[in-house]
Amino acid sequence: MIAAPQVSPFTPPRRTLMGPGPSDVYPEVLLAQARPTVGHLDPLFVAMMDELKALLQYAFQTQNEMTMAVSAPGSAGMETCFVNLVEPGDKVIVCRNGVFGERMRQNVVRCRGEAVVLDFDWGKPVDPAVVEAALKEHPDARFLAFVHAETSTGALSDAQTLCRLAREHDCLSIVDAVTSLGGVELRVDDWGIDAIYSGSQKCLSCVPGLSPVSFGPRAVAKLKARGTEVQSWFLDQTLVMGYWSGAGKRAYHHTAPVNALYALHESLRLLANEGLENAWQRHAAMHQELRAGLERLGLEFVVAEAHRLPQLNAVYIPTGVEDAAVRNRLLQNYNLEIGAGLGALAGKAWRIGLMGYGARRENVALCLKAMEEVLR
Amino acid sequence: MIAAPQVSPFTPPRRTLMGPGPSDVYPEVLLAQARPTVGHLDPLFVAMMDELKALLQYAFQTQNEMTMAVSAPGSAGMETCFVNLVEPGDKVIVCRNGVFGERMRQNVVRCRGEAVVLDFDWGKPVDPAVVEAALKEHPDARFLAFVHAETSTGALSDAQTLCRLAREHDCLSIVDAVTSLGGVELRVDDWGIDAIYSGSQKCLSCVPGLSPVSFGPRAVAKLKARGTEVQSWFLDQTLVMGYWSGAGKRAYHHTAPVNALYALHESLRLLANEGLENAWQRHAAMHQELRAGLERLGLEFVVAEAHRLPQLNAVYIPTGVEDAAVRNRLLQNYNLEIGAGLGALAGKAWRIGLMGYGARRENVALCLKAMEEVLR
Repeated sequence: MIAAPQVSPFTPPRRTLMGPGPSDVYPEVLLAQARPTVGHLDPLFVAMMDELKALLQYAFQTQNEMTMAVSAPGSAGMETCFVNLVEPGDKVIVCRNGVFGERMRQNVVRCRGEAVVLDFDWGKPVDPAVVEAALKEHPDARFLAFVHAETSTGALSDAQTLCRLAREHDCLSIVDAVTSLGGVELRVDDWGIDAIYSGSQKCLSCVPGLSPVSFGPRAVAKLKARGTEVQSWFLDQTLVMGYWSGAGKRAYHHTAPVNALYALHESLRLLANEGLENAWQRHAAMHQELRAGLERLGLEFVVAEAHRLPQLNAVYIPTGVEDAAVRNRLLQNYNLEIGAGLGALAGKAWRIGLMGYGARRENVALCLKAMEEVLR
Repeated sequence: MIAAPQVSPFTPPRRTLMGPGPSDVYPEVLLAQARPTVGHLDPLFVAMMDELKALLQYAFQTQNEMTMAVSAPGSAGMETCFVNLVEPGDKVIVCRNGVFGERMRQNVVRCRGEAVVLDFDWGKPVDPAVVEAALKEHPDARFLAFVHAETSTGALSDAQTLCRLAREHDCLSIVDAVTSLGGVELRVDDWGIDAIYSGSQKCLSCVPGLSPVSFGPRAVAKLKARGTEVQSWFLDQTLVMGYWSGAGKRAYHHTAPVNALYALHESLRLLANEGLENAWQRHAAMHQELRAGLERLGLEFVVAEAHRLPQLNAVYIPTGVEDAAVRNRLLQNYNLEIGAGLGALAGKAWRIGLMGYGARRENVALCLKAMEEVLR
């Protein structure tokens, strides 16, 4: 026998999470998770799932029937959209203005689709004029894929305009809303978004590990018209919806992450109680306070004001300041986590999150005071 | 705006879970989950992940470096094994003696592998003689895939012999240990298992949503020698291990399900404290008590004694007894969940789980008394 390792219970520190996610989780959500596990086909549990679906529809502002949470993190939500919709040979226009646009391209290639990549500077939004030109140049394109809120840079793109353009050119839109859902205006039905995914651990302030997803009628029609089998069994929406669908008997597909779904239910309930528009307003207001303070410290934003995400503030690291040392001191001395730069911004920027429950005045104050002291 | 639904906090009932999983979760595990969320790159968190890896290696009885937990349920663990190892055109011998063998076949097909299916009666183990003949008949086969403990029937197959045969015929073995890990003898290194996956919600008595996976040296070599890209970005082990590998700096791949990993750490720690062999013995002893009581009630087992899983007891529904009515009365009157039959056994059998924390004398007593009363 290989001997048993001697391990003590893990006691995590109490951090204030102001990175790019996971964000600070609502205390109510942590406790909801600790409620007793029930079976994934228990009638009381499936009734909760019906509520969860309605709460997701509210958060996305959609009446899409195919709205649910993938039993895995946001990257699996992204893959759910691509593997279900993109068939081999399908042409997809992919907008790349950060790490997650590149991840979309990876998904297209792995589905054996054809990716037409439009590159935009990191920190800039997707330019609708460039997208329109590409849609005209590629009349055979089937999809337009872009990131609404680029977590790697803090840039917000105009999802409403981009989805309108997609529709005008007979393309389906696939939208990454991992960081936008709950933090900035997002209206799936009004904007005509065809397929969208998000994550539990950003502006919903739930624990990481789940990915809300919604498919509109045009996406469902594309899925139903497939000539090939979805390459992932686990992410096959047709099978998954046999379990998530409220109509009639639920069919076992995989064992749902019961306790994580308790947590998502609770976080969405708190969002519904606050009201989506109030939550958007709170993120905007906290961003203004943080912005004013960061500028007083002489820090410059990566993204121009008009396209800046309130919930993800990327600022350049001042010349001569050591990236990791600053973040380590914030963590060690203040239990405060801020995010490192990612991809092209690694070592050049910090990412300060104000997401969900984390978008509070006390967090802004802590962050500004701690930054002031470590940068002194 | 679509109006916010009015939803109350969800208060699940306190069930005793004696179905096919999720099993009763250790109270310590539920509480571990409620500990404060930290960042997935926090130095204290990644130190916990190193412990978690050592605990998984202990549970699997392996020194495999590529041992980790997939951030999604067991079905995604299954898919991890197939998408990383099986390339288009690879021939895979799939043993099918229940629902999960069929799911393996689905995975092979979706990876564009060639599945050679060997069928065995439901409730019977995989017959090594049939497998040996197939290995001889298909010298070009690259893999042998089978389920160690069939959750749909309660049959235990001889993984040691099957993996030896695979090796003798130059095949890699892919083993489903979703229900076996922690409940019956399983020795990955001694038995020469090449790739294996399990689930958190069976004999580990953790919350559902994670899938322990381990790849041995031959599987890693096959993965490294691939000529094609892994079709799933989310499950690409080469990328995932950049985050799970203890050596050097951890690279971000996806946001780990932090709180669920606290739970898995705690459940594996409890298993290590008990000792694997003691846990196996406890499952066997509780099974004997349950078996004696079920037989006194006149219930017959689906699986012959020699191949019966202690942790999953499938018994035929007596003639004239209404399946759903009995399960509903157990649930309503005793808060006791037992499992329905699945696939070929739907409506014909019940599945009574004795898994992990659920394999206790008080559960056996409750189950026997409640069954006696509802069957009276």
